[in-house]
Amino acid sequence: MAERVAGPEIERLLQLLARLPGLGPRSARRAALHLIRKREELLGPLAEAMRIAHERILTCSTCGNIDTVDPCSICRDARRDPGILLIVETVSDLWALERAGLLAARYHVLGGVLSPLDGVGPNDLNIASLIERVRENPVREAILAVNATVDGQTTAHYIADLLAPLGVKTTRLAHGVPVGGELDYLDEGTLAAALERRTAF
Amino acid sequence: MAERVAGPEIERLLQLLARLPGLGPRSARRAALHLIRKREELLGPLAEAMRIAHERILTCSTCGNIDTVDPCSICRDARRDPGILLIVETVSDLWALERAGLLAARYHVLGGVLSPLDGVGPNDLNIASLIERVRENPVREAILAVNATVDGQTTAHYIADLLAPLGVKTTRLAHGVPVGGELDYLDEGTLAAALERRTAF
Repeated sequence: MAERVAGPEIERLLQLLARLPGLGPRSARRAALHLIRKREELLGPLAEAMRIAHERILTCSTCGNIDTVDPCSICRDARRDPGILLIVETVSDLWALERAGLLAARYHVLGGVLSPLDGVGPNDLNIASLIERVRENPVREAILAVNATVDGQTTAHYIADLLAPLGVKTTRLAHGVPVGGELDYLDEGTLAAALERRTAF
Repeated sequence: MAERVAGPEIERLLQLLARLPGLGPRSARRAALHLIRKREELLGPLAEAMRIAHERILTCSTCGNIDTVDPCSICRDARRDPGILLIVETVSDLWALERAGLLAARYHVLGGVLSPLDGVGPNDLNIASLIERVRENPVREAILAVNATVDGQTTAHYIADLLAPLGVKTTRLAHGVPVGGELDYLDEGTLAAALERRTAF
């Protein structure tokens, strides 16, 4: 409806902004007006940053990470142990682990999880490339750092079965009480896992 | 932290996206990954729409609306009654009234409300241009369509006082129960206004 008011350029901006996750029509309008108000400080630079991202960002052909170089900076980083592979669902999980900065290892981004209900099978994920990578490079340990969801765990089991014959030690993240978490708010599954794997005080 | 991982281009995109209202660091990451996944359908077109908006969008020198032409399409629209002026705080309020499509009138966008606490005085708003506009053009009715907030109502009174000597009929939006609203959820001020201005059934 804003089309009649403000011309097709603004209408197009509104429609595209509304397609960002977390923005609906109302917040897209708010974002567009904010951008137009901050024309020089924000709208111009963001348009340029998006143009550059559109032109230069690649998916790493080794690990599935995104970067402006292929192989990506992580795969090129000689200080990282190539013998440890963190297998993650998405690039945002990779970013989360990198922000924590716990392990100077390499990654393999699956690009999702197996989900028969959504029609996602092994061929839709970077699983074949993972097996090939492990076969051709010496990997001591593959850490299945997938989400603790049903689909995530199914995917972990599927991959663990494929890695077993290759003689790779396969591990997964521990389950338990999150740091700072209150027992009262946790589900029974988490409590059961935390109790079962209790450690000496 | 993602800088180390993915290079300055992605980091810059994340920083700028996080400055949009409604997006924080986490949702900016989600939005950036969504954009990169939908590279051709969304990232490219949005970069282009922003570039065009940055280049072409103007503020209407008559009413304060935004458009790619000055005067804006509303001020140019001969089918709209120039004798009725809807005075609004922001362009989003103008859009809200246009979406409702109730009155083929003209607008005047104040660009905010008087707010002594935030240091916003009459000279920070498009009030002088409003008075000049009303002085030079025949306006029968000025509708103060500002928000029903304290600052909004203060601004409305201030403007009404300035318009009074010019012989313009000044009106404001009715207070009352929103359509579909439940009494139990309304504040006492709204209930008092709705009761006081009750109409025959």
